[in-house]
Amino acid sequence: MTARTAPVRTAPDEVRTVTCVGAGVIGGGWAAYFLARGYRVRAWDPAPDFGTRLRHLVDAAWPALTELGLADGADRANLTVCATLAEAVEGTDFVQESAPEDLELKRRLLADIDAATADHVVISSSTSGYPMTDMQTDCAVPGRTVVGHPFNPPYLVPLVEVVGGERTDDDAVTWASDFLRAAGKSVITMDREVPGFIANRLQEALWREALHMVDAGEATVEQIDRSITDGPGLRWPFQGPMLTFHLAGGQGGMAHMLDHFGPSLLSPWTRLDAPELTPGLRDAVVHGCEDEADGRTVDDLVAERDRQVVALLRATGRA
Amino acid sequence: MTARTAPVRTAPDEVRTVTCVGAGVIGGGWAAYFLARGYRVRAWDPAPDFGTRLRHLVDAAWPALTELGLADGADRANLTVCATLAEAVEGTDFVQESAPEDLELKRRLLADIDAATADHVVISSSTSGYPMTDMQTDCAVPGRTVVGHPFNPPYLVPLVEVVGGERTDDDAVTWASDFLRAAGKSVITMDREVPGFIANRLQEALWREALHMVDAGEATVEQIDRSITDGPGLRWPFQGPMLTFHLAGGQGGMAHMLDHFGPSLLSPWTRLDAPELTPGLRDAVVHGCEDEADGRTVDDLVAERDRQVVALLRATGRA
Repeated sequence: MTARTAPVRTAPDEVRTVTCVGAGVIGGGWAAYFLARGYRVRAWDPAPDFGTRLRHLVDAAWPALTELGLADGADRANLTVCATLAEAVEGTDFVQESAPEDLELKRRLLADIDAATADHVVISSSTSGYPMTDMQTDCAVPGRTVVGHPFNPPYLVPLVEVVGGERTDDDAVTWASDFLRAAGKSVITMDREVPGFIANRLQEALWREALHMVDAGEATVEQIDRSITDGPGLRWPFQGPMLTFHLAGGQGGMAHMLDHFGPSLLSPWTRLDAPELTPGLRDAVVHGCEDEADGRTVDDLVAERDRQVVALLRATGRA
Repeated sequence: MTARTAPVRTAPDEVRTVTCVGAGVIGGGWAAYFLARGYRVRAWDPAPDFGTRLRHLVDAAWPALTELGLADGADRANLTVCATLAEAVEGTDFVQESAPEDLELKRRLLADIDAATADHVVISSSTSGYPMTDMQTDCAVPGRTVVGHPFNPPYLVPLVEVVGGERTDDDAVTWASDFLRAAGKSVITMDREVPGFIANRLQEALWREALHMVDAGEATVEQIDRSITDGPGLRWPFQGPMLTFHLAGGQGGMAHMLDHFGPSLLSPWTRLDAPELTPGLRDAVVHGCEDEADGRTVDDLVAERDRQVVALLRATGRA
């Protein structure tokens, strides 16, 4: 009987030791975050002087993390700078890879991590866009490799998008999601690979439209930034774009908004063509908003919005 | 000699009386804002019961406005509900039109406002997308008509985009910008008409990509919203999309970012095709970011970002 038995992973809430591979801004940010949450962190990077740089990154993040509140036992002394990859994955419960965005490099590095790490350990990649299917090709145990895409700075921004590749086991995706949630992250688990995942796609559409506007002389860089910071950006930290439009529909919510303003999807308001607003799409969006509102009326949401915008204006020094 | 003399407008910082035409969510929001800034507000709407609804809107906005700080002399009693348009524009220094988004309706209404209002008074439209060129067609004095596009809720969100039409006098655009700035708004003055102006174009690109994702089953409404509220949305109230990517470039800033990640503009990360990253576009974006950074180093901006994200996490109850 040579069939591999199911891996016995550490329970997500019993993880004590994590490994950070790569000590750039993202890898260093992850290390700082895990240290602040009370984990032991073993780190490795191929650059010979990385230990100094990594400690500098952790030190720079520490005041903000301290202000947010450290977990019991959190200590920068729990960081171990390792001389080799093998040393870094010794006794680890989880590996987060944050190498430069280069497919060949990530493919080789993941294969090296995979070869060095006990089979039951989940390996997560910070890639901002490559599908795991394309990165896990040279791994002997690809079933435990997932994407765990953070946002900069990873020690402050809660979002992590988790998704597997074609050869990833479902239970590894579930485990990574559970562990990162236990570590305090806001996890979005995707059921399929989409280039750019979710947040980067949305961000990229906005960014490309902004580049078109600069290119056409329609707006300056400063105008673009201020149009967001002093406009819709003041709503998005607490009500996303969907719920924002739910409120724009007045008492009728998203249903009124789509039924009334649906035709504006045909307006030349961006270079991006809109999808056809089929009844199915309309209903998916309307029901999604109702689910998200979760019993809160439009009036409730408006009151929340006002309270939060006032708080944000204050927090950002504008009131 | 019948040539019209240049209009003598009230100085922007000496405006005392403004007129709000339209008492829906946007018009009511404008009325509440102007009252809180200490102006006398004269309001009119064709709906017979609009006075009650308008006072309800103002009352709903007042707690937030009070918390932000009322101007000297600000008083809800400075609101005059008028029975006719002619009465509403009597002695006014400025008119803000906030009728439903319907081109024919706005065209007729602006002509009516124009006919009723003294020639020197600037008339501004809250339209979220029509060019003033298409709306001012039936005005006898089109030179004083401008777009003054606010964001919802106009009593809290600072942004107003100001732009004229083909027959608008430059000095009316300047006057409207100066007045709205004197009234406390964050004004972006555009030098040409672009469908959707700036913020709505950026917002619309993101919104359309989000609709595509829901349509294709790639993400749920809740995931889309959370990907923003717990991700890039936490940076946008204080550093717009351009400055955000300036920081993503590390010490090299936007120049490094574009030179290094430029090729990713060809990635299928959104349905929106990117413009060609010509040297001219590259330089415009790089220099725009340097202007905006205004001497602040990347380290300065990172420190500001961390302080602000911590404040936002607190303000939104997540820390």
